[in-house]
Amino acid sequence: MPHLTIEYTSNIKAEARIPELLANANQILIAQNGLFPIGGIRSRAIELTDYCIADNQADYAFVHCNLKIGAGRTDADKKRVCDHLFEALKDHFAALFAKRYLALSLELNEFSESGTYKHNNIHARFKKP
Amino acid sequence: MPHLTIEYTSNIKAEARIPELLANANQILIAQNGLFPIGGIRSRAIELTDYCIADNQADYAFVHCNLKIGAGRTDADKKRVCDHLFEALKDHFAALFAKRYLALSLELNEFSESGTYKHNNIHARFKKP
Amino acid sequence: MPHLTIEYTSNIKAEARIPELLANANQILIAQNGLFPIGGIRSRAIELTDYCIADNQADYAFVHCNLKIGAGRTDADKKRVCDHLFEALKDHFAALFAKRYLALSLELNEFSESGTYKHNNIHARFKKP
Repeated sequence: MPHLTIEYTSNIKAEARIPELLANANQILIAQNGLFPIGGIRSRAIELTDYCIADNQADYAFVHCNLKIGAGRTDADKKRVCDHLFEALKDHFAALFAKRYLALSLELNEFSESGTYKHNNIHARFKKP
Repeated sequence: MPHLTIEYTSNIKAEARIPELLANANQILIAQNGLFPIGGIRSRAIELTDYCIADNQADYAFVHCNLKIGAGRTDADKKRVCDHLFEALKDHFAALFAKRYLALSLELNEFSESGTYKHNNIHARFKKP
Repeated sequence: MPHLTIEYTSNIKAEARIPELLANANQILIAQNGLFPIGGIRSRAIELTDYCIADNQADYAFVHCNLKIGAGRTDADKKRVCDHLFEALKDHFAALFAKRYLALSLELNEFSESGTYKHNNIHARFKKP
């Protein structure tokens, strides 16, 4: 945790610069003063090849992000993280948004405390001595 | 919003007519007397190539739909929309259901009010003057 | 229901033995003394080709599982199922975990009672006469 999932329609694939988008998102999550353990940060993008948007009468596109984090952060922390991520998303797609139909969105969800299991040897790499 | 995600197993790909299924779903969501802004409707299908169903001893298939909408609609509105979508799903796959193992399902979820961000230039196309 | 979704990063694809992992998961879900109807068990794996983990500075990998079940099981039943699944996940990836960066995780979620629709002819196969 946290897990970020970014769905995007394949009609913007050539311009979406997905690796850069994911790397930037991770940097934002890392830069939250330790709010998220670095070794638990996982982002992925899913290319959507079968989709239908609105009335299906134009070449619409969308990017939808789902950030899922462990429960227990304050509302202020959650808002700050999402604000940063969404600003970065808008910046990343600003040129595209200016010239074509595009819907950007971000949702935040929390893992339930009880039903989560972890086994992770990446954390050790980031442990302070 | 709303977001519809349709997962289907690849063993029915040739007969699933996915573009038609997605377009029909959007038409149903549009036809709800303005319950959903047209410019926010987004459907997608995900083909599952790695799956295991039940005891794995026959050529089982499934189609699972997740409709996620903004919070605040009435229970009656939500039921009507889901009833329509599920009837359309059953109609769409009726011939297939009659001749092979197939599980159809639909779940409804709501976005949390607080944690959702949007930036969408498709809405403008559908604004009344 | 239940639905199991296993995401895994493509850098472990060659060693992940996904069909075996899914089949084992189904066997665990079937072996819960009738807690889950066999005909409703559906597992799938999603290969992630675009991902970014932690600081992106090593060849990190992850496997994330989401088990979603109908509401109404006891906490003890849910814990037992998840314990079994997660032990199986750790066993399955033990050799890989011992030699490379890898994060394994499992989350449990429940379907809302109200918003779920089903139409399934697989159940009939498992009906007791």
